[in-house]
Amino acid sequence: MGVKGQAAALEALILALRRLPGVGAKSAQRFAYHLLQHDREGALVLGAALTHAVETIRHCARCNTFTELEICETCASPRRNPALLCVVETPADQLMVEQTLSYDGLYFVLMGRLSPLDGVGPREIHLERLLARAADSGLREVILATSFTQEGEATAHYMGELLKARGLSVTRLARGVPAGSELEYVDASTIAHALRDRRAVD
Amino acid sequence: MGVKGQAAALEALILALRRLPGVGAKSAQRFAYHLLQHDREGALVLGAALTHAVETIRHCARCNTFTELEICETCASPRRNPALLCVVETPADQLMVEQTLSYDGLYFVLMGRLSPLDGVGPREIHLERLLARAADSGLREVILATSFTQEGEATAHYMGELLKARGLSVTRLARGVPAGSELEYVDASTIAHALRDRRAVD
Repeated sequence: MGVKGQAAALEALILALRRLPGVGAKSAQRFAYHLLQHDREGALVLGAALTHAVETIRHCARCNTFTELEICETCASPRRNPALLCVVETPADQLMVEQTLSYDGLYFVLMGRLSPLDGVGPREIHLERLLARAADSGLREVILATSFTQEGEATAHYMGELLKARGLSVTRLARGVPAGSELEYVDASTIAHALRDRRAVD
Repeated sequence: MGVKGQAAALEALILALRRLPGVGAKSAQRFAYHLLQHDREGALVLGAALTHAVETIRHCARCNTFTELEICETCASPRRNPALLCVVETPADQLMVEQTLSYDGLYFVLMGRLSPLDGVGPREIHLERLLARAADSGLREVILATSFTQEGEATAHYMGELLKARGLSVTRLARGVPAGSELEYVDASTIAHALRDRRAVD
């Protein structure tokens, strides 16, 4: 038996599950009991998927997203517009932009954002690789699509300065009232931005 | 690329992570990105722990808890009192009782509770094995320690009837005001129970 009076293999599994972000002792225990009691096949599938992903997934040499290839399919696609580069924080954000079906340019995935308090500086989010990527001759515009949080804004500002200093055209996603929202429930700062950036009705 | 435009091994990992109870698409994605970006060693450790646990963990032939042995160490221990049997829902509940250091008897772990709406009947929680276990000649008292929820209470009631019909002495954990609580914030039903079961001050 382990420290807490459970079988060693069970203790080891609970400890390993705690490496998932935001998963504490109680959740890890619940996950382990569930898999062992109700879904042993699922446990085997997950175990194999973890090992397989670690063995095959790496970062795209051009855009830094997760891929099994040297250059990911998006970067390699001849149908994408090489004049546009959209900078996002995570592959999840990239998926969200893709789902709009409104963008046909390329991407750069930071895999993070500047967060000095957590020790995440320009080096940790590969800004030197972004700058090398942005030196591409065909590139005309870099769209900064980091989050509209404090850290995301700071990251966008920092990148913007560096990219503009290299003579690139730099834009940021528009801020404004989200689709489907009632004005009454939108915060004042968002409405202030929407007022400032108001556009002519055509 | 997979359905959602991500690498197949990544998609497979996200799908496998969703087999954890209560983990949806967003959490699974966050888990996968975190492991691949920040803790690849953790992913390998977790993968191995899952496989190892499935291969080695089974149910104790006497008390039904998770163990790597035929009979778990608690059941096999000569220091436990064989006259007492405490029935709990999960190994987590068993650990909580052990942590009180106030119980030296044996256990039976239901691995669930009666929940007709979810298709969990007497057979699913191995009540026939509990009854076989309770037929032990040395046994004098069965302590029902299922949860004080509606389902836990129903399970205790059902088991109580069966065990009493076999001439066993059956008890239930006391209900009352929890240690450290201010009366003002305790619900009325708990106080009602505490009043009814009040005890003489010695």
